[in-house]
Amino acid sequence: MLERIAILGTGLLGTSVGLALRAAGFKGTIAGWNRSAENARLALEMGAIDSVAPDPIEAARASQITILAVPIYSTLDLMEKLATVLGPEQLVTDVGSTKRLISEAGSRLYNTPERAAFLPGHPMAGKERGGASIADADLFRGAVWLFTDDAAAQRSASGAELVNDWREWVTKMGARTIDLDPMRHDVMVAWVSHLPQFTATALSALLEEEVGSAPELKHVGGRALREMTRLGASPFSMWRDIAHTNTEAVERALLALEQRLARLRENLRTPGLRDEFEQANKFRQE
Amino acid sequence: MLERIAILGTGLLGTSVGLALRAAGFKGTIAGWNRSAENARLALEMGAIDSVAPDPIEAARASQITILAVPIYSTLDLMEKLATVLGPEQLVTDVGSTKRLISEAGSRLYNTPERAAFLPGHPMAGKERGGASIADADLFRGAVWLFTDDAAAQRSASGAELVNDWREWVTKMGARTIDLDPMRHDVMVAWVSHLPQFTATALSALLEEEVGSAPELKHVGGRALREMTRLGASPFSMWRDIAHTNTEAVERALLALEQRLARLRENLRTPGLRDEFEQANKFRQE
Repeated sequence: MLERIAILGTGLLGTSVGLALRAAGFKGTIAGWNRSAENARLALEMGAIDSVAPDPIEAARASQITILAVPIYSTLDLMEKLATVLGPEQLVTDVGSTKRLISEAGSRLYNTPERAAFLPGHPMAGKERGGASIADADLFRGAVWLFTDDAAAQRSASGAELVNDWREWVTKMGARTIDLDPMRHDVMVAWVSHLPQFTATALSALLEEEVGSAPELKHVGGRALREMTRLGASPFSMWRDIAHTNTEAVERALLALEQRLARLRENLRTPGLRDEFEQANKFRQE
Repeated sequence: MLERIAILGTGLLGTSVGLALRAAGFKGTIAGWNRSAENARLALEMGAIDSVAPDPIEAARASQITILAVPIYSTLDLMEKLATVLGPEQLVTDVGSTKRLISEAGSRLYNTPERAAFLPGHPMAGKERGGASIADADLFRGAVWLFTDDAAAQRSASGAELVNDWREWVTKMGARTIDLDPMRHDVMVAWVSHLPQFTATALSALLEEEVGSAPELKHVGGRALREMTRLGASPFSMWRDIAHTNTEAVERALLALEQRLARLRENLRTPGLRDEFEQANKFRQE
C-alpha cells in the first residue's frame, strides 16, 4: 500500500506531480524538498506537498517512492547519494529529459536484490518557463510518459510492486505510458523535442537580430510567428543539461535540418518545393 | 456612401472579409465570385456574400470597392483585366502576401486621374488550411493589416474617399493598419511570416522521414512539437506564388537560419549556447 511519497525538486514538474497525485485521489503523505526553500513553501501553499523537507536524503529515506524532479546533473548527483542509504523496499524514479546517463547510473547503483529500485521516467509535458507558480494538476493529461529499464527496476525485492504502483498513478494523472530503450529514447526525443526547441531558439534569436529594433513589426507575424517562437522563451537553465547529455543526437538532428532548409532554399522555384510541402503535409495528417 | 462591394475569390480570406464586414455592420451589397462556383455558393450560404457573380469583371464593374482575394499571380491577372474597364470612381484592393509585383502593377495600371484607384493590402491573418468552410468573422480581430502605396491610391478622382472608407472598414473588422514601402514589406514578411512557414515545412518534412514510420511516437512531442509543425499542414498551392514572388528575400532569410542553426550546433557544449538562449528570450519579452 503506497502511503509515503517524496518529491525532490518542486519546480514546474515536481509541483505538478504533487497536484496531479492529489487530483487523482492519492491519500498518503507527500514530502517536498527544493534547493530553494521558497519554491517548496509555494508548493506547500498550493497543496502539492504536505510538508517541506529540510533534507532530500532524509525525505527519501522516509518514503516508499521518491520522485527526482531536478535538472539532469542534479538527478545524477542525488542518485549517487541515495543509492547507499535506501533499501530494497523503496523505488526512485525521475522526470529527466534525457535517459542514457540516468539509465547507466540506475544499472550501476540500483536494481539489485539489496538495493532500491530505479525506474527512469520522462513525462513529455512542460511549459516554456519553469517554477512552482505555474504548476498544473492537468499538466500530464493527454501527455505521453516515457519509461526505460522497466524490467531492471523490477529486480529488487519490492521493485515489481512499487513500479506497478507508480505506473498506475502516472496513468491516473492522465498520461499514457510508453516503454522504450534508453538509447532509442534519447535519439527519438532529439527529433521530436530537442530539435523543435533548438529550432525555436535559433529562429527567435535570428528574428530578434533582424526585426527586434522595430517593435511595431514584431506583432505583425500573428499566430504563426507566435507559435514558432513561443519556445524561444525557454531559459538556458532548463536546456543546458539536455544539450550536454544528448549532444550527438541533437547535433545530428540540427545538421539534418540545416541540410533540409538548404534544399528547400535551392528549390524555391522548382517542382522540388511541391515535394517538400507534400512530405510535410504527411507528418500532420494521420 | 459605400454601398456595393465585390469580393473576387471566396476562399478563407475572401469569405472571412465578407463575414467580418457583416459583423462590423456593413449594410450594402456584397457580390462574390470564385473560380470554383461551389466555394462561392458556400460563402453565400454562410452569409458572407449576397449573390454569386458569374463573372469577376462584371462584378467589379458594378461595385465601388473590389477586393481581390485570390493567389498572387491570379491577382496580377485580374489587375490587368480590370484596369481598363473600371473608372476613377472605383477602388480595387487586395490581400496578397507579397507586395512588390502587385505594387508595380498598381503603379503601371491604376492611380491616374482617369483610372480606378488601387490600394495594395495584406492582412496578417490566416490558417494553415484554406477554404470558405473555415472562414471566420473574427479572423482579422487583433491582426495587423498592412498597406503599401496609400498616397498613390489617393490620386484618382475618388481615391482619397474610397481609400479612407476601406481603411475604416478594415479597422471596424478589428485589424490594426500599418503602412510601409512595398519593398520593405516583402523583406519584412520574409522574416516574420515566410521564414516561419518554410521552417515549419522543412521541420515537418524531416520529421516525417525520421519518425513517420513510428506513428505511436509522433504524439510524444506534445504541445511544443504540435505548435512547431502546425504550419507543416499548409498546402503548396497557398505558398507557391509567395516562393516565386519573394524568392530573394526568402533565400536570404533561410540562409541566415541555416547559419544560425549551425552556430548553435557547434556551441551545444560552450557558453555560446547561453548567449543564443538569452538573445532568443529577448524576442519573446516585451
